[in-house]
Amino acid sequence: MFESAELGHKIDKAAYKKAVPQLRADLLDAQYDLKEQGRIPVIVLVSGQDGAGKGETINILYEWMDPRYLSTLAFAAPTDEERLRPYMWRYWRALPPKGRVGIFAGSWYSSPIHDRIDGGMTQVQMDQRIDQINRFEQMLVNEGALILKFWFHLTKEGQKRRLKALEKDPRTAWRVTKWNWDRLKTYDQLQEVAGHVLRLTNSPWAPWIIIEGEDERYRSLTTGKIILDSIRDRLADAGKQATPVAPPIPPNINGRDVISGLDLTKKLAKKEYEAQLAKWQGRLSELVRDPRFRQRSLICVFEGADAAGKGGAIRRIAAAMDARDYQIVPTAAPTEEERAQPYLWRFWRHIPRTGRATIFDRSWYGRVLVERVEGFCAEADWLRAYSEINDFEHEQVQAGAVVVKFWLQISKEEQLRRFKEREKIEFKRFKITDEDWRNREKWDAYHRAVCDMVDRTSTGMAPWTLVEANDKNHARVKILRTLCERLAAALEAPIPAAGFPPAGKTKDLKKKGKK
Amino acid sequence: MFESAELGHKIDKAAYKKAVPQLRADLLDAQYDLKEQGRIPVIVLVSGQDGAGKGETINILYEWMDPRYLSTLAFAAPTDEERLRPYMWRYWRALPPKGRVGIFAGSWYSSPIHDRIDGGMTQVQMDQRIDQINRFEQMLVNEGALILKFWFHLTKEGQKRRLKALEKDPRTAWRVTKWNWDRLKTYDQLQEVAGHVLRLTNSPWAPWIIIEGEDERYRSLTTGKIILDSIRDRLADAGKQATPVAPPIPPNINGRDVISGLDLTKKLAKKEYEAQLAKWQGRLSELVRDPRFRQRSLICVFEGADAAGKGGAIRRIAAAMDARDYQIVPTAAPTEEERAQPYLWRFWRHIPRTGRATIFDRSWYGRVLVERVEGFCAEADWLRAYSEINDFEHEQVQAGAVVVKFWLQISKEEQLRRFKEREKIEFKRFKITDEDWRNREKWDAYHRAVCDMVDRTSTGMAPWTLVEANDKNHARVKILRTLCERLAAALEAPIPAAGFPPAGKTKDLKKKGKK
Repeated sequence: MFESAELGHKIDKAAYKKAVPQLRADLLDAQYDLKEQGRIPVIVLVSGQDGAGKGETINILYEWMDPRYLSTLAFAAPTDEERLRPYMWRYWRALPPKGRVGIFAGSWYSSPIHDRIDGGMTQVQMDQRIDQINRFEQMLVNEGALILKFWFHLTKEGQKRRLKALEKDPRTAWRVTKWNWDRLKTYDQLQEVAGHVLRLTNSPWAPWIIIEGEDERYRSLTTGKIILDSIRDRLADAGKQATPVAPPIPPNINGRDVISGLDLTKKLAKKEYEAQLAKWQGRLSELVRDPRFRQRSLICVFEGADAAGKGGAIRRIAAAMDARDYQIVPTAAPTEEERAQPYLWRFWRHIPRTGRATIFDRSWYGRVLVERVEGFCAEADWLRAYSEINDFEHEQVQAGAVVVKFWLQISKEEQLRRFKEREKIEFKRFKITDEDWRNREKWDAYHRAVCDMVDRTSTGMAPWTLVEANDKNHARVKILRTLCERLAAALEAPIPAAGFPPAGKTKDLKKKGKK
Repeated sequence: MFESAELGHKIDKAAYKKAVPQLRADLLDAQYDLKEQGRIPVIVLVSGQDGAGKGETINILYEWMDPRYLSTLAFAAPTDEERLRPYMWRYWRALPPKGRVGIFAGSWYSSPIHDRIDGGMTQVQMDQRIDQINRFEQMLVNEGALILKFWFHLTKEGQKRRLKALEKDPRTAWRVTKWNWDRLKTYDQLQEVAGHVLRLTNSPWAPWIIIEGEDERYRSLTTGKIILDSIRDRLADAGKQATPVAPPIPPNINGRDVISGLDLTKKLAKKEYEAQLAKWQGRLSELVRDPRFRQRSLICVFEGADAAGKGGAIRRIAAAMDARDYQIVPTAAPTEEERAQPYLWRFWRHIPRTGRATIFDRSWYGRVLVERVEGFCAEADWLRAYSEINDFEHEQVQAGAVVVKFWLQISKEEQLRRFKEREKIEFKRFKITDEDWRNREKWDAYHRAVCDMVDRTSTGMAPWTLVEANDKNHARVKILRTLCERLAAALEAPIPAAGFPPAGKTKDLKKKGKK
C-alpha cells in the first residue's frame, strides 16, 4: 500500500518554481468554476504520519487557492453537544456546501485509528465503523461530493529526519512535542492499523491517495496537481453517479399489500378514548421523566396522506411532555443552505441530544414518497435513498435513540370528507390548498410508494407502525400506546455503546500534542 | 407593577368557548400573513411564577396556532459549546427567522434572575446585564422583530392553590416537585428581584405584559389576544423603527482626518522584513500556544480598500498558527438563512470558542462601509450600526476575547498600480472584477466612511489599528507586531468574568426541577 510513497520522491527548486505559477492559476480557475457551477462540494481529508507535512500542506493550499471558498475543519475532543449525539453528527455539521472546498484536518478516520492503537476499540468495532464510513462516503459521492482522501506517508527513518528538521527551525520547533516523539515509538503500530483501515476504505468512489511526505516541494506540487485534476474531472462529468443503483422494485401482481390489508373500520368510542388517552399520556410523561431516558433520545416520524390527522396526533403527544424537552420539526421546502448539502443534512440538524425528543411532521421519507411520485428527484436517487435512510436510522439507534415511525392511513372517501369539513371550519380553512387536491389525484401512485417504503425501511430497530386513521380516537390511542411500549422496552434494554465514550474518558488528542 | 394581575381575573366557560374559535382562526390567519410577508420574526418570552401556567400556555398556543411555524426554545444549563462563548451566543443561535414565531421557555432573563436570588450575581453585575439586555432587545426591534415578553403572575396564596391543584391532577402532578414548593418560600425574593428587572427592562420597544396566571381560561384567552393584536399591528406598520436613530455625523470642515494623516511612505527593506516577520510569527505561535490562551479567544478583523493586501497579511498570520486553531471567514453576500436574521447574526455564527481564533476578511463593518456608500441599507440602519457593533465587540471582550481590528490604507495611485499588476499575473487575475473598478470611483465616499467608522468604533477594548499599507512589508510586520502586543497584554490581564461561571458551578435549573 505504501510502497510507491517510499521511493524518495523529490522535486528540485527550479522545476518547482517553474510549475507553481501555472498550478496556482489553474487551481484558482477550477475553484472559481466550482463555485459558479455550485453543484459539487469538495471534501479534502488530510491525514497521515506526524511530521509528514499535513499542516504545511494545508497552509500551502491556503496560499495557492482562494481562502474565501476554503474552510478547514479541525476535530479535537468532542464537545458535549457532539457527545450527546451520534458519532457522525459532528462531521455532518462540518460538511462544506456545494461549490466549496472543505479541508478536514482530522476526520471520521482519526478517532477509530487512534482508539484502535490505544486499545479503546476492538477489531470488530473498528470494522463496523469502517463499514459505516464506506457507506457514508458512498452516500456523499452519490450526492455529488468529490472526496479526496490524502495520506501523507513517511518511512520510519524519514519521520525521524523530519521531526529533527522541524525541531531545528525556530518557527516550527513548537510543533514537535514529546507526544510526537512518542508516536515514533508506535510507528509500526500506526502503519499496521492505518494499512488495515486504508485497505478497507479504498473504495472506487473515494480511493486513498498516498503521498510521500518528506520532500516539501514534491508533496505540495503532487497534492496541488491531484486536487486540480480531480476537480476538473468532476466538473466535466458531475452528473455521473459513482455506484450502481439499487435493483428495481418488483411489481405487485396480485393486489395484496400491507396498506390494503388494514382494517380502517377500527373505532374507539368517546368515553373509552378519553380514559385511554389520559392513561397513555400519563404513562408517556412518566417515561420521558425516567432517569434512564437521560441516556436516550426519542425520534418520532409522522407520515400520512393530507388530512390523515398527523397534527392532531402530534399535539396529543406534545401535551404529555414538557415543551422544553421536545421540538416539532415540520418538513418544509429546504432552504438555500440545506439545498447546498446532502439530502439528509437538513434532518441531521434537528437530531435531538440525549434526554430530548424531536417529532418530525413529515420527514426524510419525502424522498421516497412525494419526491418519487412527483418526479422531483431521479429514480436512481430515490432508489438509493432506502438504504441511506436505513443507515441513518441505524446510526441514531446505535447512539441510544428510540426511533418510532407512524404511517397514518385513511380511505380516499374519508379524506374527501375531511377536506370538505376543513373548508367549512374557519380556523382549519388555511390547511386546504390546491396542492392537496392535486395530491389526491395521485392516490394510487402514493399507495404504491407507501407499500414500497414500508417493505424497504421497516427494520427491526426502527419498524413502521401502520395506523388505521379513519377514526381519530383509535389512531391517537394506538400511536400513544405504541410510543409508550417502544419507549418502555428501550429503557429496559442496555444502551448501545456505539457513540462516544463518556466525557472524561476520551483522550483529547490535540491537547496531548500541545503539552 | 403586578397590581393589575392580582384582581382575580376570570373568564367563564361559556364566554371562553364562544371566543376561542374566532381567536384560533384569526391567529392562524395572522401567522399565515406573517409567513407570507416574511419580514418580522416574533419572539415570545414566557416567564413568571412557577405554577402560573407557563407550560400550559405554550401548549395551548401549539393547539391554536400552526406548529409548523412555531418553535419552542428551552435553555437548561449551558452546553460547553455555549459556555466557551459569550453569554448571549446561545440566544442568538436560537432566534427565530423572519416570518416565524419563536417561543422562549426561559430566556436571557432566566439566569440573571435566578443567579441574583441564589446570590451568584451582585446588584451591579445584574444591572450591567439589564443594560445589555435592553440594548439587545432594542437592536432586535430595530431589525424588525416583534418582542412579546409575558410574565405570568400569581399572588402567594394563588401560587399555593395552583401547586395544590396541579399536584392533585395525575396528569400534571409530576410538574410539582420539592423544588417548586421551595420556590414558594422564596416567593417574596423572586417578586423583589423580578420587580426590579421588569421595571428596568420595561422599554417602549419591548414592554412587559403581566398576566394573572390563576385562571386558565383568562390566561390563555388574554395571551392569545395579545399575540394576535400585536402581530396584526406590526404587520400593518412593519417599516416603522422603534427608536430614534443616532444623531447625524458632523461634516469634516477643515480636511483633516485620521486617514489623511497616515504616512504612506513607510517602508521596510526585504532583509529587515524577513527578520522581523520570522520574529513576530515565532512570537505569535508562542502566544497562541500559551496555556493562558485557552481561556481566551482571538477575533481579528481585516478591512481595507480592494488590493490593500488583506489576504497576504492574513496568510502571514495563519502561517504562524495551527490550521486546527483558526478559521478564516470571508464576508460574502448573506445566505437566505442569514437574511432571515438580524444583521449581526451571521457573524455571531462564527464567533470562536475559547482557545481558538477567527479571522474575518471583511466583517460587520460592511454595514458602515459598503452598505453605507452604496446605499444598500437605510441611513437609519447604518447610523445605529455603530453602537450595535460596539455592543457586539464589548460582549466578545467581556467573554475573554481579544478583538484586533486592522484598517489597511493604500493610496489611490498604489491601488491602480496593483490592479494593473494583478491583471498581468495569471493567478491573480480572478481577483480583479468590474466591481473593483466601480468601487474605485467612490474613493472619496469610502474615505469619509472609514473616518467615521474609526471615530465611532475605535474603543478602548477594541481599538482600530490603522496600517500604512503602500509597502506590504511594513504593513505585514506592523500587523503581526500589533497582534502580538495586544495578545501578550491580554494574557497578562485578568480574564473578564462576565461569561458563564465555570462548568460544574452552574446550577442546572431544569434538572433540579425534575428531582
